[in-house]
Amino acid sequence: MKVDDPVLLAEVTAAFHEYERALMADDIPAMDALFHDAPTTNRYGVGEVLYGIEEIRAFRKGRGGSPQRTLGRVAITVYGDVFATADAEFHRAGSARRGRQTQAWVKFADGWKVVSAHVSLEGETS
Amino acid sequence: MKVDDPVLLAEVTAAFHEYERALMADDIPAMDALFHDAPTTNRYGVGEVLYGIEEIRAFRKGRGGSPQRTLGRVAITVYGDVFATADAEFHRAGSARRGRQTQAWVKFADGWKVVSAHVSLEGETS
Repeated sequence: MKVDDPVLLAEVTAAFHEYERALMADDIPAMDALFHDAPTTNRYGVGEVLYGIEEIRAFRKGRGGSPQRTLGRVAITVYGDVFATADAEFHRAGSARRGRQTQAWVKFADGWKVVSAHVSLEGETS
Repeated sequence: MKVDDPVLLAEVTAAFHEYERALMADDIPAMDALFHDAPTTNRYGVGEVLYGIEEIRAFRKGRGGSPQRTLGRVAITVYGDVFATADAEFHRAGSARRGRQTQAWVKFADGWKVVSAHVSLEGETS
């Protein structure tokens, strides 16, 4: 299996950063466009578990925007032709705890979409 | 793109549960066999961030086993022929906080392997 095809890696890296921009701006349509529109798309946030795009949409509408954050280390890998993972650290303003975000991306006919996401703050014990 | 091919879904579901068995038994060789042997394989745990299979192996050797836990809701989806996500809740003995685990699985020549994992305990705020 080919890993990190350079064209695909550039595509999904651009999509990853577009999502970050949309999250920081609370640009809900842009965030929604980057998540796969399906009941199988799930998101575990720091304080919530969401199953299916409808639960994700409802959460975003009621959230009033994400806390502001800056990205730390970002590790993106493309496996084959249509799948990628994006693992990223972040720091929220005013918090000493390290944030972590993982996303699984799939390339559909209409582009790269997140199919599973998990966001958490590092705890004190494993 | 075909979603949830039944044969592939059965394969990756079996691999998911084999990993859970190995984790509970601290069966390090079995856990290792289910993670992709590559520097691109990452794992964010409750209290650590690990980049590459070598960091994951070192953590497991020094950990002395995972806290015991029981699985809650499990959502596994297969996208196409070689990729799957597994999103699962768990409860640790003695903890009231909900645990969440996400894994991205890729089917290589030697079988299904985790390429990215994230484990956290639900926090109080998003």
